[in-house]
Amino acid sequence: MALFITLDGMDGAGKTTQLDVIRQWFAERNLPVLFSREPGGTPLGENLRQLLLNPELKGQISLHTETLLMFAARQQHLEDVVRPALAAGVNVVCDRFTDATYAYQGGGRGVATEKIAMLEQWVQQGLQPDLTLVLDVPLNTALARLDAGRDKDRFEREEADFFARVREVYRQRAAAEPQRCVVIDSSQSKETVKAQIESILAERVAMRAA
Amino acid sequence: MALFITLDGMDGAGKTTQLDVIRQWFAERNLPVLFSREPGGTPLGENLRQLLLNPELKGQISLHTETLLMFAARQQHLEDVVRPALAAGVNVVCDRFTDATYAYQGGGRGVATEKIAMLEQWVQQGLQPDLTLVLDVPLNTALARLDAGRDKDRFEREEADFFARVREVYRQRAAAEPQRCVVIDSSQSKETVKAQIESILAERVAMRAA
Repeated sequence: MALFITLDGMDGAGKTTQLDVIRQWFAERNLPVLFSREPGGTPLGENLRQLLLNPELKGQISLHTETLLMFAARQQHLEDVVRPALAAGVNVVCDRFTDATYAYQGGGRGVATEKIAMLEQWVQQGLQPDLTLVLDVPLNTALARLDAGRDKDRFEREEADFFARVREVYRQRAAAEPQRCVVIDSSQSKETVKAQIESILAERVAMRAA
Repeated sequence: MALFITLDGMDGAGKTTQLDVIRQWFAERNLPVLFSREPGGTPLGENLRQLLLNPELKGQISLHTETLLMFAARQQHLEDVVRPALAAGVNVVCDRFTDATYAYQGGGRGVATEKIAMLEQWVQQGLQPDLTLVLDVPLNTALARLDAGRDKDRFEREEADFFARVREVYRQRAAAEPQRCVVIDSSQSKETVKAQIESILAERVAMRAA
């Protein structure tokens, strides 16, 4: 039976690097796998992604509307990509999923948790990832990675508070669902992080096959 | 205090004609009024409307995704247009609103009523129109208006069933909320329909002013 795996965590936590690790791991074992991302992953999703980034619509899409659009993209992505792949025995690895909505739109920007939970239920109808890898970096590391060229003071303090809230939600969700979520300290060396991820993948794939 | 009025009903029930009647009625009395439509009414809404009609996305947007997009447009429309206008004492007349979602996506195409109700609550948070004018035509009239040039048989029977379900939902909703909804038989003469609408508007505006 196929696994639904999501990779999540704060910006700058090293998702791109670790996606390559996962890609290589599946390729070396010749296991069927499909890589996707949210928002996106379908023609509609890519259109919505463009719409969210469209400079002409800057300031014209509220936080709550954005949350609804995220879940509209997710609905289509689950119907057209994730569910059919899993049903066909293909593992799915998704770059960001609902945990990101809780962390960014919820913790970071203030959409009520219950409102997100309502849409999660509406769209996912109980479907959850089998495994979520949460890449975590200490706040100081995240802050050190902030562009040094920016206007300091107020902006950086706001950004620090924002990151702290986002990180807190990821960690809370991982703590609340230890079966599904594994937090990985991605401030460690690349080789250490790689070895941890490979060991988790091996364990979960073996469990599923058993 | 301003009124939130919606005009709804099956395609071909004469909404365009009656919108003009309402427009003229407000203009003659010099009452502040804003006309809008759903989906649309905001830059995001117009973008989503185009997206829903984009031939390249035909078959790429599922019924449930479409329903979420309708409510995303509605969220933005309420935040940016409807609520601010009402708060400023400007009456709002909206061409289609949530009753259309229940009728078309729900009754016509099968989205569960509870799923629509959940999004209605999420987005509207209790806000409802003060008055909904439901234009109704007997099914035979609607069918007679169907394009005679089309492939008959299966298509028309399906279309007839579809219209019957849409109409039934509009009528049920109107019956369940008699304070808010007024059903108008728009198969009557234009003058009769016009007189009915004018009389309802006069009554409701007077009630609100009292």
